[in-house]
Amino acid sequence: MADPDPLDLIARKRDGGELDEEDIVELVDAYTAGAVPDYQMSAFLMAVMLRGMNETESFALAHAMLYSGTVLDLSDIPGKKVDKHSTGGVGDKISLVLAPLVAAAGVPVPMISGGGLGHTGGTLDKLSSIPGLQVSLSLDQYRKQLREIGVVMIGQTDEIAPADKKLYALRDVTGTVEFIPFIAASIMSKKLAEGIDALVLDVKVGRGAFMPDMDAGRRLARTLEGIGAAFDRPTVSLLTLMDDPLGLEVGNWNEVVEAVRCMRGEPVEDVRELTVALAVEMLILGGAAETARAASKMAERILDSGAAFEKFMQMVAAQGGDTRVVEDASRREGTHVTVEVQAGPQQEGYISSIDARVIGSTAMRLGAGRRAVNDEIDPMAGITICRRKGEPVQPGDCLARLHTRDADTAAPFMEAVRRAFAASRRRPDNQPIVVDRLSDGKWSSGAA
Amino acid sequence: MADPDPLDLIARKRDGGELDEEDIVELVDAYTAGAVPDYQMSAFLMAVMLRGMNETESFALAHAMLYSGTVLDLSDIPGKKVDKHSTGGVGDKISLVLAPLVAAAGVPVPMISGGGLGHTGGTLDKLSSIPGLQVSLSLDQYRKQLREIGVVMIGQTDEIAPADKKLYALRDVTGTVEFIPFIAASIMSKKLAEGIDALVLDVKVGRGAFMPDMDAGRRLARTLEGIGAAFDRPTVSLLTLMDDPLGLEVGNWNEVVEAVRCMRGEPVEDVRELTVALAVEMLILGGAAETARAASKMAERILDSGAAFEKFMQMVAAQGGDTRVVEDASRREGTHVTVEVQAGPQQEGYISSIDARVIGSTAMRLGAGRRAVNDEIDPMAGITICRRKGEPVQPGDCLARLHTRDADTAAPFMEAVRRAFAASRRRPDNQPIVVDRLSDGKWSSGAA
Repeated sequence: MADPDPLDLIARKRDGGELDEEDIVELVDAYTAGAVPDYQMSAFLMAVMLRGMNETESFALAHAMLYSGTVLDLSDIPGKKVDKHSTGGVGDKISLVLAPLVAAAGVPVPMISGGGLGHTGGTLDKLSSIPGLQVSLSLDQYRKQLREIGVVMIGQTDEIAPADKKLYALRDVTGTVEFIPFIAASIMSKKLAEGIDALVLDVKVGRGAFMPDMDAGRRLARTLEGIGAAFDRPTVSLLTLMDDPLGLEVGNWNEVVEAVRCMRGEPVEDVRELTVALAVEMLILGGAAETARAASKMAERILDSGAAFEKFMQMVAAQGGDTRVVEDASRREGTHVTVEVQAGPQQEGYISSIDARVIGSTAMRLGAGRRAVNDEIDPMAGITICRRKGEPVQPGDCLARLHTRDADTAAPFMEAVRRAFAASRRRPDNQPIVVDRLSDGKWSSGAA
Repeated sequence: MADPDPLDLIARKRDGGELDEEDIVELVDAYTAGAVPDYQMSAFLMAVMLRGMNETESFALAHAMLYSGTVLDLSDIPGKKVDKHSTGGVGDKISLVLAPLVAAAGVPVPMISGGGLGHTGGTLDKLSSIPGLQVSLSLDQYRKQLREIGVVMIGQTDEIAPADKKLYALRDVTGTVEFIPFIAASIMSKKLAEGIDALVLDVKVGRGAFMPDMDAGRRLARTLEGIGAAFDRPTVSLLTLMDDPLGLEVGNWNEVVEAVRCMRGEPVEDVRELTVALAVEMLILGGAAETARAASKMAERILDSGAAFEKFMQMVAAQGGDTRVVEDASRREGTHVTVEVQAGPQQEGYISSIDARVIGSTAMRLGAGRRAVNDEIDPMAGITICRRKGEPVQPGDCLARLHTRDADTAAPFMEAVRRAFAASRRRPDNQPIVVDRLSDGKWSSGAA
């Protein structure tokens, strides 16, 4: 490896120039190794953010971040390994249902996730709310469980994309987070390191998403798809709406309970709708189905038969979780209080929208998420929505229930939660949750 | 002082917003105090550099840097204190002549200078080549000497603009040096801290200048002038040509010798021309003359009468320098060799130009300047030009003499120095050295 001159690379991007793949790989390697100081890297990141990155640069960044750590080779495990990644939403318990569903169809799902970020929850935090369940498995245990059960969900390890870890920490304190090529490289470097053959992306847009704007969401999806293609890993993206929370539960344990209901075939409306849409893509990519129609039928059957739930229980047991409380949530011990938020005098007619961002950040503040890295999560804290979008409402009706350690914790948030529910005279139209689909760089309108 | 949120200020500049004066002052204060880390400051500097700074922001930066340290109050010393600053040239010994000249006219000149930078020499290094002369005076000694003799020339102290010192070190390693508002704030914060009432700026343009481009030089001059006006310190800028070296001597001791010749009334062509042009501005700003014509006559008389030299000798004596070697340069001991560079077979006709940048960097490499901060300067090293621009030349003629410790040191540079001299059949036209003048934001073409 030649020694990169960080000052030269900074100046070239600053002046609007383009870098070679090699330049970027060497810079990221040197930064990860501690040979380039934070103050040069942050100047570089800012110059890149304001001048932009071309496709080659963007792929080189993902490449450098991916190969900064272990890249798993799962080729000794039969079948095409397929994973899903979501850019983050409120009430997004889809992975808990989807991974076992797809594994139950014979497509191995190796999933390495992060914790919640900001107002959005993390799959890992939800899973960890099951008493006893371990998410800190070694990569050997991860491989073994994937071979034996076909599904495994663990947390980020230090071996996976260490450059991303270091760069993310720097971006977070230097105003260089919200830039599509950085976001895409961060996501893809972690996902490609899992050893997958194909990937489905749930790119959220709307007020509860990190990237509310539809065009920005499309650009992100295209960049993610392009990186996947560059690494010969077929990638399909669904652009999905995140204006309102997904399902009725926002938190951790309460989201597990809702996911279990869905896995038992209960009609948990939009959760089931989105799970099936994503499962269709994964089943086709994994070779379990040939057409969207067949894949969709297969997914519905696996949910209705309880096969998804059975696979989920195998995974919970393998990772040391208490299956009895998953089977029967009433066994779960907890000393929490529930405070009801009621509709105000103006909230009459139909619920026309529920502000996902308000619900998400309130749930976080109630204890369901972290405001600072070292905050501890309260697995029982969260919000249950009583009136979903489209349902009739009148003053005094229950809008939501806040679950927290004591009523005092909830009090300051009640008014904001009330105002998160908008009411209208007219019943709002139903909107499909999947608004667009991107595969191999081509968009098709609507779900597959 | 409120606590600034550096992340918020970074994001606002990144997104093309504007900052309040207070924001910038607080950020610079916090950075100087160590409360804002380098990696945030470098991201901020890069965002500012790519998004630009408006006038308010630019003045606020200069203000913050100025008040990060001691701002001298010299109001107890009678007269208007006037200084000159040059943006850096090759063979630029003007300050050595100009400061005593203006002081001899009764205008006090307090001058705090830096060392040489890159291919350009520093006044401080030239002055220090006089045996015994001290440039590290305390601010009390500085004040005392100004009162008693009317002129003092010292080096930067830690009390003057410490924010500039820290920011410059960071800019130097993060690709954020070449940005006019940063350059202007750096210059003006140090100069305004000296306690001056008015300032004359020699903004160099041409291939030997840091800012070769005429338009960029004009923009820098305008920004400097604007900052001076904002602090109620009348500032006049001359835009001067730095294509060829000033005078015939480039180095340290040899430049002192040339300056002394000029102060003794010898016709050291362009050195005298530029000194008088700058003196005119300083004498008018200092109240010693009313018109350019009167000021010009006064300056010429002070040079011809030897009054400038007398003032220079008072200063040298006050600062502990050996006046005997200044009086008679042949007394200066030295064991240097002189190597002659002769015109090649193609160099026939008239010298049409002498590349100041090549001459400057060669002199630096011969020992007259520093390549790294801790390099020691050889006071006797340098270059003497034998054929000035416009003089006839033929193959074998002496073009320049290199002064160095031994002939081996000079050998690798002889060809580059030879090629720095361009010859043409036609005698080149004489160009005035002052190409433009800016005062109170208004340009007038040509010298005053």
